[in-house]
Amino acid sequence: MPASPIRKLVPFSEEAKRKGRKVYHLNIGQPDIPTPDVALNAIRNLDLKVLEYSHSAGNESYRRKLAAYYQGIGIDIDISEIMVTTGGSEAVLFALMTCLNPGDEVITPEPFYANYNGFAVTAGIRIVPVTSYIQNDFALPPIREIENLITPKTKGIIICNPNNPTGYLYSREELLQIRDIVKKHDIYLFSDEAYRDFCYDGAKHFSAMNLEGVSANVVLVDSVSKRYSECGVRIGALISRNREIMSAALKFAQARLSPPGLGQIASEASIDTPQEYFHNVNREYTARRDFMVDALNKIPGVYCPKPKGAFYTIVRLPVDDSDQFARWLLEEFEYKNQTVMVAPASGFYSTPGSGKDEVRIAYVLKIDDLRNAIETLGEALKVYPGRK
Amino acid sequence: MPASPIRKLVPFSEEAKRKGRKVYHLNIGQPDIPTPDVALNAIRNLDLKVLEYSHSAGNESYRRKLAAYYQGIGIDIDISEIMVTTGGSEAVLFALMTCLNPGDEVITPEPFYANYNGFAVTAGIRIVPVTSYIQNDFALPPIREIENLITPKTKGIIICNPNNPTGYLYSREELLQIRDIVKKHDIYLFSDEAYRDFCYDGAKHFSAMNLEGVSANVVLVDSVSKRYSECGVRIGALISRNREIMSAALKFAQARLSPPGLGQIASEASIDTPQEYFHNVNREYTARRDFMVDALNKIPGVYCPKPKGAFYTIVRLPVDDSDQFARWLLEEFEYKNQTVMVAPASGFYSTPGSGKDEVRIAYVLKIDDLRNAIETLGEALKVYPGRK
Repeated sequence: MPASPIRKLVPFSEEAKRKGRKVYHLNIGQPDIPTPDVALNAIRNLDLKVLEYSHSAGNESYRRKLAAYYQGIGIDIDISEIMVTTGGSEAVLFALMTCLNPGDEVITPEPFYANYNGFAVTAGIRIVPVTSYIQNDFALPPIREIENLITPKTKGIIICNPNNPTGYLYSREELLQIRDIVKKHDIYLFSDEAYRDFCYDGAKHFSAMNLEGVSANVVLVDSVSKRYSECGVRIGALISRNREIMSAALKFAQARLSPPGLGQIASEASIDTPQEYFHNVNREYTARRDFMVDALNKIPGVYCPKPKGAFYTIVRLPVDDSDQFARWLLEEFEYKNQTVMVAPASGFYSTPGSGKDEVRIAYVLKIDDLRNAIETLGEALKVYPGRK
Repeated sequence: MPASPIRKLVPFSEEAKRKGRKVYHLNIGQPDIPTPDVALNAIRNLDLKVLEYSHSAGNESYRRKLAAYYQGIGIDIDISEIMVTTGGSEAVLFALMTCLNPGDEVITPEPFYANYNGFAVTAGIRIVPVTSYIQNDFALPPIREIENLITPKTKGIIICNPNNPTGYLYSREELLQIRDIVKKHDIYLFSDEAYRDFCYDGAKHFSAMNLEGVSANVVLVDSVSKRYSECGVRIGALISRNREIMSAALKFAQARLSPPGLGQIASEASIDTPQEYFHNVNREYTARRDFMVDALNKIPGVYCPKPKGAFYTIVRLPVDDSDQFARWLLEEFEYKNQTVMVAPASGFYSTPGSGKDEVRIAYVLKIDDLRNAIETLGEALKVYPGRK
């Protein structure tokens, strides 16, 4: 695997910090939102003498509570349809390992979450991109374009909804279109819904689990990382009504023994997080997004769509090559002894040459910091030698 | 992957419990030893507001302390040679994924830890067994037998030392023999030392990291699971002086973002466990082993070697088929309303038909329970219809 364009930047970011510069990290998906108190308190009140293995599919008490949680948000599943995983990451890997053989293909709209590439390498499968475009806010590409990519090796489609890196929230109509081709070709639909709780402007999330007629085809990947701002506990879930998938995935789960035990304690307690927490988080991210979209679109030559979900956006910049721009920001530029780190979008495309004038921005900073960061970015674009 | 013979027994064990029978679990490696207080207290004193991702290679503070820990036990490595993993399991997987290509082979003495099979499936590689025998206490097979198995596809040798499932502790001389063929054929040596702290009768563990002349070939797999009786925290380590391996493994680590954060806090604190804890644990396991070996060898037709490490032994029983015997124990047998669950050894061999009169026993029960369990096993062997 080649190092991603984001990771290649890390040494330059460290160098900038060594020079005493303040670096605003617009490149990462680590929220600054506090973890709910119910989770932290469950950990502090730990009442165990031995930190034992859990069941390979996760603690039964947690799975039972998770099933009730999903039922409460309109996803009707039972405990046997849930496997607790080591983060959403492991759920993606288990889904691909379970449903595909080496050499098989999955189609996904690009730009897409770059770590899917790593799991594809591990599973020995190939990710086939279908390009979505900034001018359409990264909406689902026309369904015939997806269908044109289907070959005998195609075993599924991966969507991330709301989307990382674009922030796009797929509509019910788009999901029904995907449902139709999934059904017609009898392929899997892997739906990564790690950002389900981050939908703005009153938009409703429509889960792939609620698509009718494809219940044996749908595999849901979920995570507590963003929902409760507890990325570090490494707890996710693999969910499917297809019992063969669950039973095959369990064998991979058994080989790695169990998901993290302390993380399961935090995650189980997190289900009792009061609704007010989510209202506050939603209000905060909506304000950050609104501020950011407005501020970015005021910079000459910059275009930022207004994403309806997650906490990312792909922004078009008037630059020759965003990889070089991102590196230049860290290596050469400073404004009031500050600079910014952005994620070059090339890492989210697999079509060569795509995303060269785009970066991903995560709005996980407080508005005051976002203001400074975007002002700095604007000043940088005035003087960047590779400006288009 | 087929379900292992142990896992196939689980429903029968549950059925036996439903019938009100006490089931002694001699089949599992979950110790009953308390986790050290320093680890539990570190968790209870959690002083974080956000449970964030850690570095993909693990928290720097933990890696720094780990390096000092290894130096303290005579393994001279620095922080750049350590990657924190999600259990020893992930370290094995990353090692195989990093060092082998699909279709490649690794040689390992059988019986071997059955989960290596699962990681081999994920990595698309083949495990080639070289049989060790109970009459030799499962010592390393003659080195020429190992060498005879080396083909152009052979990329390494895996050893587990002390061994799960046999309890065998490889001697310095055996490790030097392995070193010689590793060096001669320039292949990798994967050394799984998760049980390093469990050596009895004053026997000294000799780490593969201390083999001279093969420092670029050796990959150490370690785990805190057994050392501190904290299997559930899912923290292990991948260690190598080969910088190419560490750099390639980091890409797999980055795809899964980070190892468990709370587990790292427990593991880091565990390094301060007082020596007295280990003395007590060693004394306890030595007493259990001595009791078990003695009691088993008193049963007519049974042979149990005296293992020098870990907390397992492979025992030969006078039965036709240990898979059937293990199932019969749970389904049909009871003595004073008790029965025992043992791990049929067939699951630890990949040579078909091997281990049919052997079971693995884990001596993770208190002596009073071991006494009852072994008495029950003895009574069972008197009446088992498939007795040889």
